[in-house]
Amino acid sequence: MSQTVLPESAVPSIPTRILLGPGPSNVSPRVLQAMIQPMIGYLDPDFMLIMDEVRELLKRVYQTEAANTLAISGTGSAGMEAGLSSLLEPGDTVVMCIYGFFCERMVEMASRIGANVVPLRAGWGRPFPEEMLEEELKKHTNVKMVTAIHAETSTGVRQPMTNLARLAKENDALLMVDSVTSLGGNEVLFDQWDADYAYSATQKCLGCPPGLSPVAVSDRAVDVMRNREKAPVSWYLDLSLLGNYWGWEGNRVYHHTAPVSMILALREGLRLALSEGLTQRFQRHTLNAKALCAGLEAFGLECVVPEEHRLAQITVVQIPDGVDDSSVRQSLLRNFGIEIGGGLGELAGKVWRIGLMGESSKAEYVLALLSALESVLPKAGYEVAHGSGVAAANNVFKS
Amino acid sequence: MSQTVLPESAVPSIPTRILLGPGPSNVSPRVLQAMIQPMIGYLDPDFMLIMDEVRELLKRVYQTEAANTLAISGTGSAGMEAGLSSLLEPGDTVVMCIYGFFCERMVEMASRIGANVVPLRAGWGRPFPEEMLEEELKKHTNVKMVTAIHAETSTGVRQPMTNLARLAKENDALLMVDSVTSLGGNEVLFDQWDADYAYSATQKCLGCPPGLSPVAVSDRAVDVMRNREKAPVSWYLDLSLLGNYWGWEGNRVYHHTAPVSMILALREGLRLALSEGLTQRFQRHTLNAKALCAGLEAFGLECVVPEEHRLAQITVVQIPDGVDDSSVRQSLLRNFGIEIGGGLGELAGKVWRIGLMGESSKAEYVLALLSALESVLPKAGYEVAHGSGVAAANNVFKS
Repeated sequence: MSQTVLPESAVPSIPTRILLGPGPSNVSPRVLQAMIQPMIGYLDPDFMLIMDEVRELLKRVYQTEAANTLAISGTGSAGMEAGLSSLLEPGDTVVMCIYGFFCERMVEMASRIGANVVPLRAGWGRPFPEEMLEEELKKHTNVKMVTAIHAETSTGVRQPMTNLARLAKENDALLMVDSVTSLGGNEVLFDQWDADYAYSATQKCLGCPPGLSPVAVSDRAVDVMRNREKAPVSWYLDLSLLGNYWGWEGNRVYHHTAPVSMILALREGLRLALSEGLTQRFQRHTLNAKALCAGLEAFGLECVVPEEHRLAQITVVQIPDGVDDSSVRQSLLRNFGIEIGGGLGELAGKVWRIGLMGESSKAEYVLALLSALESVLPKAGYEVAHGSGVAAANNVFKS
Repeated sequence: MSQTVLPESAVPSIPTRILLGPGPSNVSPRVLQAMIQPMIGYLDPDFMLIMDEVRELLKRVYQTEAANTLAISGTGSAGMEAGLSSLLEPGDTVVMCIYGFFCERMVEMASRIGANVVPLRAGWGRPFPEEMLEEELKKHTNVKMVTAIHAETSTGVRQPMTNLARLAKENDALLMVDSVTSLGGNEVLFDQWDADYAYSATQKCLGCPPGLSPVAVSDRAVDVMRNREKAPVSWYLDLSLLGNYWGWEGNRVYHHTAPVSMILALREGLRLALSEGLTQRFQRHTLNAKALCAGLEAFGLECVVPEEHRLAQITVVQIPDGVDDSSVRQSLLRNFGIEIGGGLGELAGKVWRIGLMGESSKAEYVLALLSALESVLPKAGYEVAHGSGVAAANNVFKS
């Protein structure tokens, strides 16, 4: 085989998008720049220091003093599976609060592991009713774990965690929290919730490229992992081995080759988030979402989630009757370079999901989207009053 | 929580290293640059085209016409586990050829899955004796799969694949090949071996950062996955779902958020490798390794693997009696910025592993390492003749 002449790429360079879908979000140039530092060995003493630094920075965003942290070498779903497969053994009872697409993914994963899955299915688009969990827990004596999603990307609901967390603890169950879409965008209170395992992803409110799943693990959960009867089926996602690799107990045991560039990106993303200040960052997310919703409502569109339960980082809006989902999204993308997301599961074709996360949560992007919708919606058969969306959003920004 | 003043990083910027360990290797500036293109959505039509392009480029490096390819969102070990967990069901018999550290990792993973693992253990540092496999296969009637590692990074042995492959086929078993350290560095002949599953990693001879595992899957293996009795325990590494996501059968089904930046890096790395020409690339690796070995032998050091079985991409050399492993490696790193690797498993403390892979396989790095060793080895109590290593290497380059 001699030298090959390759055909030109179909997409030789990536177009610049305003990413207002459910993630990935836009990435700060400083984070991108962090990725192109020279490569370094995964056992290099300097890289060990960087891993230690990432662990410390993760503790700050998870608002925990005591938990053990690391970044799994996979995406958010890898974090979900690592927790389920490392904490549950076949036959263990896990009670799962279900109120969206990603909750159902947890059911699928836990079932594959052979756990005794008790899914509590509540309606999509509202917070999970805690009394359902309370009633169910009365029926069991040995629930190993309770799971919940703090920010369901499929519905845009902010799940109040305090009471679910209390119920789990009262029943001596571990608490696993999905914070994929919340970490860095609103309060994830690992210690205050007395959580045992939380996982997230880098491409949402942390403003990094996708590829890692930052996690926090309580000492109690570590004990559970260390005292399993049998090793988890997954070796790659075995949190106990990953903890040894990240030096939770001092010395480090080789596991796999860490994705160096992604970890450098995460370090920079975490430093940016903490430098902004978590409170300020959450306020920014809240303000921009409020302006977006005001604009959408001025167009006569309806947000699915009642205001008091809405996530700031993802807004789920009804597609008006007669308007074609994909042609609107394609037009936004092709004519304005703006990506928004479609619905998932039972909401497919019925809603749009508009993400304002991390670097994508900016006033100018809110205004750009509302202005673009003003052009696109009428072509899709839905009339909007000229200037109404932008004016409503600007009113929020001025207030 | 108000705005945080963060302490300065312990390692604010990454030092430039010459990476001559077992990976990661150095990364071309063009590949690094590819990673910092603007972020793009994982369902963006332009990104779909890029995924298609990566699949095509992977077919070329795997030298396959028919196989299905994709890049798993995890490191090489994720590729190992994905193959085992997607192709084996509990109780299935898998015969594993064992001749190094990473072969043993396969045993561990397959055991966790509940497979009936038949490990055939041969000595480290020599190719696996095919008659061992031939004898073993006579004892079984229903072997589901045979596994082998093409390039064992722990020993530096190039495993001849043709006869192992033939034996697997004669016994109607699937053939799984680890090409983590070989893909892009020497011939991986997926079609010629009639292989069913091969996996690799990006940070070795493909010259990219670590984080992805490029794989090739035969149609026969796809059939096996599609017709399992039960879904694999791992959802994240379920190759059948990943194939749907990468569009093996046309339409695409959402699975997880692809690590966009890493895929852009892989695309550029593959284009660079194929533009160089696979044959030329393999010759480059061979020449540089030959020069390195000549230099090491001029110092009186001994390469572990007989010349005819040596890998060009990783050279395993005995540590002379009385010389301290880690002080030599530390001195190379701290005083010369050169990383080499230590031994793994039964070879820990006994050997050094010197990688010349992808971007790290360069004449100037060979000469830099030999020159540095000329300074470092005497301080560790091992005398070498001045200039002998460099002269021997240069003789190879001149020939």
